[in-house]
Amino acid sequence: MYEGALQSLVDELGRLPGVGPKSAQRIAFHLVAGEDADARRLAATIVRVRETVTTCTRCFSVAEQPLCRVCRDERRDHGLICVVEEARDVFAIERTRDFAGAYHVLGGALSPLDGVGPDELRVAELEARVAEGGVHEVILAMNTNGAGEATAAFLSRRLAGTGPRVTRLASGLPAGGDLDYADEVTLSRAFAGRREA
Amino acid sequence: MYEGALQSLVDELGRLPGVGPKSAQRIAFHLVAGEDADARRLAATIVRVRETVTTCTRCFSVAEQPLCRVCRDERRDHGLICVVEEARDVFAIERTRDFAGAYHVLGGALSPLDGVGPDELRVAELEARVAEGGVHEVILAMNTNGAGEATAAFLSRRLAGTGPRVTRLASGLPAGGDLDYADEVTLSRAFAGRREA
Repeated sequence: MYEGALQSLVDELGRLPGVGPKSAQRIAFHLVAGEDADARRLAATIVRVRETVTTCTRCFSVAEQPLCRVCRDERRDHGLICVVEEARDVFAIERTRDFAGAYHVLGGALSPLDGVGPDELRVAELEARVAEGGVHEVILAMNTNGAGEATAAFLSRRLAGTGPRVTRLASGLPAGGDLDYADEVTLSRAFAGRREA
Repeated sequence: MYEGALQSLVDELGRLPGVGPKSAQRIAFHLVAGEDADARRLAATIVRVRETVTTCTRCFSVAEQPLCRVCRDERRDHGLICVVEEARDVFAIERTRDFAGAYHVLGGALSPLDGVGPDELRVAELEARVAEGGVHEVILAMNTNGAGEATAAFLSRRLAGTGPRVTRLASGLPAGGDLDYADEVTLSRAFAGRREA
């Protein structure tokens, strides 16, 4: 459809998550026809990110130093570990400004059909952090789909009796949602997890 | 929210058209955590596009040679010029595979409040192409919003009496659309432009 380089750019952009063919074309034209400095700055930033961003040696979130910003922060409770699937989940939780503990990024969820077992995730590293002592609670904050549920159940068994309290995030109606728009599983869980009013 | 380079990347991505804050974060994490080669290839392609893609010296569409692919194609009717606002409109029309003429990219639409008058668009260049002779029809294919309509009306007056037939794209109900979803202006135009059945 397009000539050489422009077609390559449309193709590359179309491989990004959430970018469909129409968006890829629109972004490509913006990069071709917009300010030269803007396009080159984006390219340079992508390269810089690959060169400076690594994984935190303790929690495996993203970091630009051996320890990430959360792990370096002495005001946080490092005895409270929130286990998440991916690094981006850390930032979703950080945006609530409600959680003052530390994290542990598993790197995914158990998925035997895709060949993802405990050894493919950072389970041993989590167990090692717990074995070091000083951890009073581990919060399992997986996604609420099948793989996430299975991973949480697995970790719950693995951590049982190792010392810390092991908890899971509440499941129920999302805030601001209409009850009749909730799916059956969500509604069942909201009933099962009901509290005193 | 994020550390240095990652925050810069989220910011840069958020400036792209159609990329909101959530998408920018998702794409940034993809570029950070995905394959190194993929991310670097995207960066290199952006730079390559800026270095190789220019504007066609005749129609002002995108080109990697002095003339774009359409202007170089001798099987097309170069006496039939379709005038569009932006280069991306050329490719929208090319996708129909219905049009076998040439193009002229204005570079925008008249918008006096934004300081865009005829001198800011490639109007003189269009008049020069017509004055050269051999043009039998000019199709005005502006967007159907206020600025596009004003631009089409302006060009229609400017080209009157210069020789070629001057036409505009039909306006009416979009294909596959429900009549009761059409807005009033579209429906009015569909009535005004009605044809013998």
